[in-house]
Amino acid sequence: MAPHPLRTLDVDETRVARDVILSQHPDTVVDFREIYLQEPNKEHMKKFLAAEHSATPGKSPNSKRPPRLAKCQYDVIGSDKIPEYHESVVDVEQKTRVKHEVIGKDNQASLTLWEFQILVEACKKSDMFQKAVAEFKLPEGFELVVEPWPYGGLDLGAENRRYFQGLCFAQDTRNGNADSNFYAYPLPLIPILDAHKKEIVRIDRLATGGKGDSLTAKTHSERVLDHCQSAEYVPELLPGGTRKDMKPINITQPEGTSFKVSDESLIEWQKWRFRVSFNPREGAVLHDIHYDGRSVLYRLSISEMTVPYGDPRPPFHRKQAFDFGDGGAGNCANNLSLGCDCLGVIKYFDGVVVDSSGEPTVHPNVVCLHEQDNGIGWKHTNWRTGRAVVTRQRVLIVQFIITLANYEYVFAYHLDTAGGITIETRATGIVSVVNIDPGKTSDYGNVVSGGVLAQNHQHIFAARIDPAIDGHTNTALYEESHPAPVSPTTNPNGNFYEIRKTPITHSAGLDAAPLHNRVFKITNPASLNPISGRPVAYKFTPPPTQKLLAAPGSIQSNRALFTQHHVWVTKYRDDELYAAGRFTLQSQLEKGGVADMVKRNDNVENEDLVVWSVFGLTHNPRVEDWPVMPVDIFRVELKPSDFFTANPAIDVPSTKNEASVLVEKECCAAGKL
Amino acid sequence: MAPHPLRTLDVDETRVARDVILSQHPDTVVDFREIYLQEPNKEHMKKFLAAEHSATPGKSPNSKRPPRLAKCQYDVIGSDKIPEYHESVVDVEQKTRVKHEVIGKDNQASLTLWEFQILVEACKKSDMFQKAVAEFKLPEGFELVVEPWPYGGLDLGAENRRYFQGLCFAQDTRNGNADSNFYAYPLPLIPILDAHKKEIVRIDRLATGGKGDSLTAKTHSERVLDHCQSAEYVPELLPGGTRKDMKPINITQPEGTSFKVSDESLIEWQKWRFRVSFNPREGAVLHDIHYDGRSVLYRLSISEMTVPYGDPRPPFHRKQAFDFGDGGAGNCANNLSLGCDCLGVIKYFDGVVVDSSGEPTVHPNVVCLHEQDNGIGWKHTNWRTGRAVVTRQRVLIVQFIITLANYEYVFAYHLDTAGGITIETRATGIVSVVNIDPGKTSDYGNVVSGGVLAQNHQHIFAARIDPAIDGHTNTALYEESHPAPVSPTTNPNGNFYEIRKTPITHSAGLDAAPLHNRVFKITNPASLNPISGRPVAYKFTPPPTQKLLAAPGSIQSNRALFTQHHVWVTKYRDDELYAAGRFTLQSQLEKGGVADMVKRNDNVENEDLVVWSVFGLTHNPRVEDWPVMPVDIFRVELKPSDFFTANPAIDVPSTKNEASVLVEKECCAAGKL
Repeated sequence: MAPHPLRTLDVDETRVARDVILSQHPDTVVDFREIYLQEPNKEHMKKFLAAEHSATPGKSPNSKRPPRLAKCQYDVIGSDKIPEYHESVVDVEQKTRVKHEVIGKDNQASLTLWEFQILVEACKKSDMFQKAVAEFKLPEGFELVVEPWPYGGLDLGAENRRYFQGLCFAQDTRNGNADSNFYAYPLPLIPILDAHKKEIVRIDRLATGGKGDSLTAKTHSERVLDHCQSAEYVPELLPGGTRKDMKPINITQPEGTSFKVSDESLIEWQKWRFRVSFNPREGAVLHDIHYDGRSVLYRLSISEMTVPYGDPRPPFHRKQAFDFGDGGAGNCANNLSLGCDCLGVIKYFDGVVVDSSGEPTVHPNVVCLHEQDNGIGWKHTNWRTGRAVVTRQRVLIVQFIITLANYEYVFAYHLDTAGGITIETRATGIVSVVNIDPGKTSDYGNVVSGGVLAQNHQHIFAARIDPAIDGHTNTALYEESHPAPVSPTTNPNGNFYEIRKTPITHSAGLDAAPLHNRVFKITNPASLNPISGRPVAYKFTPPPTQKLLAAPGSIQSNRALFTQHHVWVTKYRDDELYAAGRFTLQSQLEKGGVADMVKRNDNVENEDLVVWSVFGLTHNPRVEDWPVMPVDIFRVELKPSDFFTANPAIDVPSTKNEASVLVEKECCAAGKL
Repeated sequence: MAPHPLRTLDVDETRVARDVILSQHPDTVVDFREIYLQEPNKEHMKKFLAAEHSATPGKSPNSKRPPRLAKCQYDVIGSDKIPEYHESVVDVEQKTRVKHEVIGKDNQASLTLWEFQILVEACKKSDMFQKAVAEFKLPEGFELVVEPWPYGGLDLGAENRRYFQGLCFAQDTRNGNADSNFYAYPLPLIPILDAHKKEIVRIDRLATGGKGDSLTAKTHSERVLDHCQSAEYVPELLPGGTRKDMKPINITQPEGTSFKVSDESLIEWQKWRFRVSFNPREGAVLHDIHYDGRSVLYRLSISEMTVPYGDPRPPFHRKQAFDFGDGGAGNCANNLSLGCDCLGVIKYFDGVVVDSSGEPTVHPNVVCLHEQDNGIGWKHTNWRTGRAVVTRQRVLIVQFIITLANYEYVFAYHLDTAGGITIETRATGIVSVVNIDPGKTSDYGNVVSGGVLAQNHQHIFAARIDPAIDGHTNTALYEESHPAPVSPTTNPNGNFYEIRKTPITHSAGLDAAPLHNRVFKITNPASLNPISGRPVAYKFTPPPTQKLLAAPGSIQSNRALFTQHHVWVTKYRDDELYAAGRFTLQSQLEKGGVADMVKRNDNVENEDLVVWSVFGLTHNPRVEDWPVMPVDIFRVELKPSDFFTANPAIDVPSTKNEASVLVEKECCAAGKL
């Protein structure tokens, strides 16, 4: 049977795509960046999925199957050794290239991990850099570590060459542990790599001052690490070891899981049915989400994230990552580990990555799937009879975790028994730090360890919700609750409040308004709830989080226009997947992102529309965020709103869990009331 | 050993208090309402706790022990049969009354469940009511059910007698199941009880119209239930039964729990140490919360909640419950059940309740305590070495659940391994409904079932946080992040943002400001963090939820002044525990609540202060909320902010959980990438 059109490309398909590209570029060197599934266009997919959902089981709707397409991203190295970045689409079954685009110099390809290696190598070879490092007297037994970062937004007027910057630290090697935490020892210099020349072209010197010092004052001594302190997190290096009194909690499913997975992509669980795929940019993506045979969403993804830093001292204004567009969340996904990243009975999914020769390898366990008990789901006690009916909320979790240098994000989609879908992100890892002089404090961050300033920053995420509420023709609106004036005929006692609905007729950026209880609904006006008479809908309350703080017109702000609103509603177009646009690396201005999409002023009433939810965190670090920060958790919750004719979890059994027990008497000294 | 001063009164102590009261009121009938612990005054407790925390283990600081006091609430029935409400405080050890107060007629005692029974009996005896019911033709086999409710805010000019109202429904008895859901069959009349006369004194007739109908139009026919539909939730009455494909999730702790409980009140777990008590008004209360020997909070409680309804048709403006002040959350607490209300290894705590004779009985399992895995706690992967260190977040949960007629709330305090304390509430149960004519819809709610209108309403909670951050002398402030203007010397690239701190000098009501990332910190200015140099603090972001919608000056609004702000900061005074004041039943104006407390304009800088967090939910019902609504979850998160010198969870072991397994092959048809 042919693979499903939404299934992640396998190793063989990836090789075919590679070979087709190589055959198109004979006698040149091709450095591959990515090869991954180019999803079929939606018009084609809609027909295919309609046939699939109506087909008799076992009968595959192969006749209408869309082509298997591979998006190929690669550099073509000309005779002048300057790489030219290309993007192609290959029909894997026909073994032909169906689209080819040479990306101009104005846009930079997403980075790959092999480019990071170039920076590290170039630093080793650079006399200029070695001389700069030699200006510092590192403590005995410490060795330099260069941490590659994207260059950030290109300054106005700067030539758009391909740059990377290296954050420098020193690692205490005396303990012989390669995981000793070098972030505790930041060095105040940043080498800049010209990635095409493969040379360090500049060294940026960092200010290390505090309150009252000018932005550019270079105040540190040569012994810049002497006031830094060890801050280990690997258990074998913790001075006191790990705590001994935490007893295990085991989560078991003796009768197996309640979910079924087929074809490595189709997941069925508690009336939910959807597919999961994985790509290097967005990580795990959910497709064609149905509940009890009814369509809910066409596609759900985390689209982008930007992390701007608020330290005004140059070059820190260029600390601004776009972790999806710059480096790719899928590329940076962790290989998850049983019994660590999730507990219970786990199903893992693999990804496929290519090296620069285009050779694919399986990237194992990049996505995990498991069920979780989420506490009480619904309960009612009849106080007359004493009869309590209590059910648990069960959640199915699709999770992936990414590491971006110092920082980690845990992304998860939670589907629950009450028809809800929650997008959860957990921010953890090591906050980005710079050196600060002994005894000083700063307006730009918090001193979290000796000599270590954790800079203030923001994390702003964009989730992309491509709805298909009972079909693809939907309308979005927002609903608010407002006080009503006292009036003898309409509000004699002042307790009435009015619900106002505002349909979103044209593509737009909109904001949270929590004090008016603003709730966004994605409705299907053609499908009325038979009970309430209202259009079926899913709703969400946009988290009213702070927007980007960088000044309007600044480069940080211009390249992240998607942060200007909490909610964007756009008309669907194929390939418009990225909130900050297709190319973010070194961008000076967001191009082709949601801000551009809404400028089309498309009609979005009774249309195939896309809703983008932008939310985030202004992260002014606490000492408790050091050396590895406890998770900060954010959630966007999509809930049915008159989509069903009753609580969809009403038939969840209220079975007593037989494995639950009372505590042992020994734990709890008896007392009597 | 004498009981700890904060321990819930036991049965014997309660009896002593009862007997002391009875001896003070000879030759009269005394109807008891409540007897429970009167907590010692704070000045005394501070000394006692200081001694306790510094004492050698085993040596009890008994010499300074505060008295064991019982608060006794009771009606004294005079010769004229009109009850007079009294409150007394009894020293249980000295067997003496130390305080006595006769509450005037302006204030109503909290209701007791035995008063509800009076309403039901009075309805049976009332000819007026029986005649009113007879105007309706109930379907064959249906029987009347009267659901007692508090009367709500007394209309202006009305005599302040003690009233209750009865919401009327009919139950389908043909299935022989006493738990058949009668809420699906609402009748449009409300009998009013004069509780002192024990008589029905009035019948309120309810409008059943829809859009376009006047507020008072009586439009229904005598066959007012014919268009209503069965809406069962007990599993044996579900037409399709319960789903069969949900496999159990078991949570076990083979080595036992990580917590220890002694004296039925002291809980020690993962460096946390605190006491739990239980009282009829607030339910479970946490006391004297320490982490690693350092004081964090003196007391933490859910103080009040109001649930106003937005339907302007009289008498629905009087649908406004104060579930803590009117009826008592502790009184309405469920007896929790193993394997249902929480999973795993559970420790239960009992409460003590009295009947009208003052006879105490143990109210078993009103609070449960258990540990829970809360997903990833912190993680970092060193991408150079591939070494991932991942720890779980463990949470200790103190939970109680209350039933208020149709509705349920799950309240829980979560203490976590990262030093955080989360107050969680889950709203569930059956939404309050009224009859609506066939085919009509309404601006006042949503039709969630045939003939059933679920009225729009709000739930607004107040949590009371009595901090003791490294001691009792604290200062609150709020901190905001603001964009800064571009300037060559301070912000050349526009990426800087400024953190502004505003200390709260005098008692005040303050609001959430999420778009400025307003965070409240409770600091101890005398205790500086040795790393950052900043005052140690705990912080929280007030949930920016909608405030009360009822018109200013309306009775709904006047009796819930605490809903005017998201955060209140008051100077501590003994016995100021209740956000909406001591007496809420039938109130017309909040008296002695937070709004009055702040009027004192007390200095709260470097003082013993109390912080109140007000948050809620505007609940415009969905069809999915019927017949029992899936939980809506709200959280307020208290987190350390420069309280510790590092992530307090850094020493949580990253042990691999050996009980986690891969899914069986059978579940997941193999595929290959």
